[in-house]
Amino acid sequence: MIETQIISTEKPKLTKPICIVGLPGIGNIGRIAVDYMVHEMKAKKFAELYSPFFFPFVIVHEDKIHTLRNEFFYTKSKDGRDMILLIGDCQTYDPKGHYEVSGKILDFLESLGCKDIITIGGFSTGALKDKPKVFGVVVDDKDAKALKDKGIETKVSGQIGTIVGASGLLVGLGKLRGMGGFCLLGETSGFPIFTDPNAAEGVLEALKNVLGIDIKLDKLKEKVEEMHDFIKKLQDVQTQGMQEFKPKKNDEELKYIG
Amino acid sequence: MIETQIISTEKPKLTKPICIVGLPGIGNIGRIAVDYMVHEMKAKKFAELYSPFFFPFVIVHEDKIHTLRNEFFYTKSKDGRDMILLIGDCQTYDPKGHYEVSGKILDFLESLGCKDIITIGGFSTGALKDKPKVFGVVVDDKDAKALKDKGIETKVSGQIGTIVGASGLLVGLGKLRGMGGFCLLGETSGFPIFTDPNAAEGVLEALKNVLGIDIKLDKLKEKVEEMHDFIKKLQDVQTQGMQEFKPKKNDEELKYIG
Amino acid sequence: MIETQIISTEKPKLTKPICIVGLPGIGNIGRIAVDYMVHEMKAKKFAELYSPFFFPFVIVHEDKIHTLRNEFFYTKSKDGRDMILLIGDCQTYDPKGHYEVSGKILDFLESLGCKDIITIGGFSTGALKDKPKVFGVVVDDKDAKALKDKGIETKVSGQIGTIVGASGLLVGLGKLRGMGGFCLLGETSGFPIFTDPNAAEGVLEALKNVLGIDIKLDKLKEKVEEMHDFIKKLQDVQTQGMQEFKPKKNDEELKYIG
Amino acid sequence: MIETQIISTEKPKLTKPICIVGLPGIGNIGRIAVDYMVHEMKAKKFAELYSPFFFPFVIVHEDKIHTLRNEFFYTKSKDGRDMILLIGDCQTYDPKGHYEVSGKILDFLESLGCKDIITIGGFSTGALKDKPKVFGVVVDDKDAKALKDKGIETKVSGQIGTIVGASGLLVGLGKLRGMGGFCLLGETSGFPIFTDPNAAEGVLEALKNVLGIDIKLDKLKEKVEEMHDFIKKLQDVQTQGMQEFKPKKNDEELKYIG
Repeated sequence: MIETQIISTEKPKLTKPICIVGLPGIGNIGRIAVDYMVHEMKAKKFAELYSPFFFPFVIVHEDKIHTLRNEFFYTKSKDGRDMILLIGDCQTYDPKGHYEVSGKILDFLESLGCKDIITIGGFSTGALKDKPKVFGVVVDDKDAKALKDKGIETKVSGQIGTIVGASGLLVGLGKLRGMGGFCLLGETSGFPIFTDPNAAEGVLEALKNVLGIDIKLDKLKEKVEEMHDFIKKLQDVQTQGMQEFKPKKNDEELKYIG
Repeated sequence: MIETQIISTEKPKLTKPICIVGLPGIGNIGRIAVDYMVHEMKAKKFAELYSPFFFPFVIVHEDKIHTLRNEFFYTKSKDGRDMILLIGDCQTYDPKGHYEVSGKILDFLESLGCKDIITIGGFSTGALKDKPKVFGVVVDDKDAKALKDKGIETKVSGQIGTIVGASGLLVGLGKLRGMGGFCLLGETSGFPIFTDPNAAEGVLEALKNVLGIDIKLDKLKEKVEEMHDFIKKLQDVQTQGMQEFKPKKNDEELKYIG
Repeated sequence: MIETQIISTEKPKLTKPICIVGLPGIGNIGRIAVDYMVHEMKAKKFAELYSPFFFPFVIVHEDKIHTLRNEFFYTKSKDGRDMILLIGDCQTYDPKGHYEVSGKILDFLESLGCKDIITIGGFSTGALKDKPKVFGVVVDDKDAKALKDKGIETKVSGQIGTIVGASGLLVGLGKLRGMGGFCLLGETSGFPIFTDPNAAEGVLEALKNVLGIDIKLDKLKEKVEEMHDFIKKLQDVQTQGMQEFKPKKNDEELKYIG
Repeated sequence: MIETQIISTEKPKLTKPICIVGLPGIGNIGRIAVDYMVHEMKAKKFAELYSPFFFPFVIVHEDKIHTLRNEFFYTKSKDGRDMILLIGDCQTYDPKGHYEVSGKILDFLESLGCKDIITIGGFSTGALKDKPKVFGVVVDDKDAKALKDKGIETKVSGQIGTIVGASGLLVGLGKLRGMGGFCLLGETSGFPIFTDPNAAEGVLEALKNVLGIDIKLDKLKEKVEEMHDFIKKLQDVQTQGMQEFKPKKNDEELKYIG
């Protein structure tokens, strides 16, 4: 495999689809939020993405080989917009890979008629909160107002300097193709926990509000518990891979969001 | 050379061929096991693989330049399945290279009508054993039963977290193309020895069992002795190359978000 | 995105255009000098360059996502030569990327009929000067005389050993395509300041002289003040990215120009 | 520039040309030996090679920008074989780049009808010798005899383990295309001197013998003196580039030939 590739099992006909992206990142907030949506909305898987920019190993899960991948699901809606849900085992460790993977995802979304993309991630503030905030980072001023009306914090400049990886690039590069969208970032402590269901709940509440969809969140924590083993394994693998395959990082602490 | 390339001297017509892969790795178990099969079964070489993702030097062996390569052999069978045997001087040091090399090998195997692949490697347990175990890691549950019936341990989840490099990717990426297969891993101490003939013998016994082939193993240790010099040289070169060309590994834990 | 790409909103018809390049570098001299020219000459933006070799994150500026880019502007002249002004948020961190980005810029300039290129950078001398010197580094001897006549120092061999990144490559690789040009380097202290308006002023004076253009420089410092926040953010991001994504640099001091 | 490219100013018609390669390496033996041949034989330059895998900076030499390159020259012979002489400012720092550059050179040589290649390098033995040895490393046994008859040491296995970079790959990869050739390595101390004219003289003597050509070597040391400044600059730049752009090397000493 020389380039990132997406293998579809079906080409769904979707009405004005909007894509919600939950890739691994700080607190795995996007990953668990969108995974929960997949389960609750009974979304149907229709494509997988594989990349030579993912770590060059397979993980062993439930006694079987699992090749690292991202997965596309869709939901059909009777009265609203259809949705494409994207979750992933990993992001690439490679700077150039982030651009390639993001570009391939955008190509694929365009081919499905998708013109809007919302990426979900975490924003580490170093503090534990009962009611974590949700930040919205837009590409167009008009979206800022709409988000603010739903109670989402869009004054972010002082606090958020960069958004690393696919979460930022998908929205930023999407705009160059005429796609709209924003990042929804759940406030999280940044302490070394690998899932933050509280922050995920906050983000899902915000998303329900913004999209006008109805998902019950009462089973979220239970689901996160179930995902625990697999996500921990992915996290361990990610850590192992970073040590094995990534150029050395400096000692200084780096602020980082994703 | 910009991409990995395979140079064939012959295009053999093979009946339902199954590919057995023995690339360098821990204890060089796959390498010596499949090398032994090549010698014992008088397999015929028909292709070589070269890659820009291999180390950028040639080794000097028996006063001659030897360019790093992987080699394909085949055997014809009167009453069973033909075999393709793949052995290699090295694996790539480059994460992206693992995907490219594995993809090229799978393309080539497909062009030969090969639909099954067994990769052989080692699994380090940190303990010396008289009778080392053999583990089988499958991609499909149905294979697990067949292996278990032959006495191969397929309950591996607690013990094996990842399979690094081509051994895992060939099986994992093969599945995406509709190929079957599994990894056969010989238990080895992981102590700094560069060949473990004991573990290789265990794996070959398992393979004989699974494939129903007849190979005498009594000359294995003698052969390993003969291969000693060349494999030690490859190992040294690998070590040198890793120091020279690979990003340095960190000792510290790395925080990662993305 | 797999290759660097340039997205044009307009294809201007330009008369014998000359390109002035101001990319980030030491003291950000080129960046602020050419940015000032854009403002003062009311140059019109007509294209943007994006690259997978830029850092894989977006920056958050004024509460919005800003994808890293370089920008092309043009000015029309009644009695002289039209100009293409190129400014950038960043340069690539990747050695191979410098060649790709420079090549793509040269392809684009050629398609616009541009045959001359002047890149602007800084040259760190480690000393504070009231009246910093301006150095000109040519590819052809004939240009040296013309520059010397305008009071620009072209005897540089003892002082300048290399020119790193796009500033040097654009001129050097341009020559292979029959393009003329030179680097104009403003002397700067190299102390950790991120903009050096004094050096930029020196370079702009030299450029006015060479090109015979009329730009008032009295608002330069005020403009630099305005750009301060955005450039500081880019600088921080660059620093962060270097730590995160670039192989570790040795402790020894490296002379650097760009 | 995305791939290594060769720019020709002429397509010479050559009779059974043989290529002699002198790229930078330990003691710069190949570089100065072949450079001397170019001068003495009044060889004519007809092509240049540029690569995105070279360091991303230009060097400033004699007050002018010099883009890093390799250069092809040819000589015509009345009664023997024509020659292609290849010298270079640098080799790539990138493992994959070595394969790309070597492949492009071989493509080019093939297009010129060249079927034989001799690369010249140094071999560090850690000892000063009045009369340094010359080693020949072949790809085919038949060449070994011919070299031995000319007094060149071809029993090298105990002493030389690897040949790093283009010197080895050009011969090794050339063989895959049906080209003949060998590496000629001059014994050098490996002490930190950047040119070893003694070793270069030894290699040139051997080459005269092997090729049956007549070059006077009495001006060699004088020429090396003249080349001193430029080669020192290239060496410094190489060192600087390695620190700047290459993954950090381990502390342990690595044996190196090239």
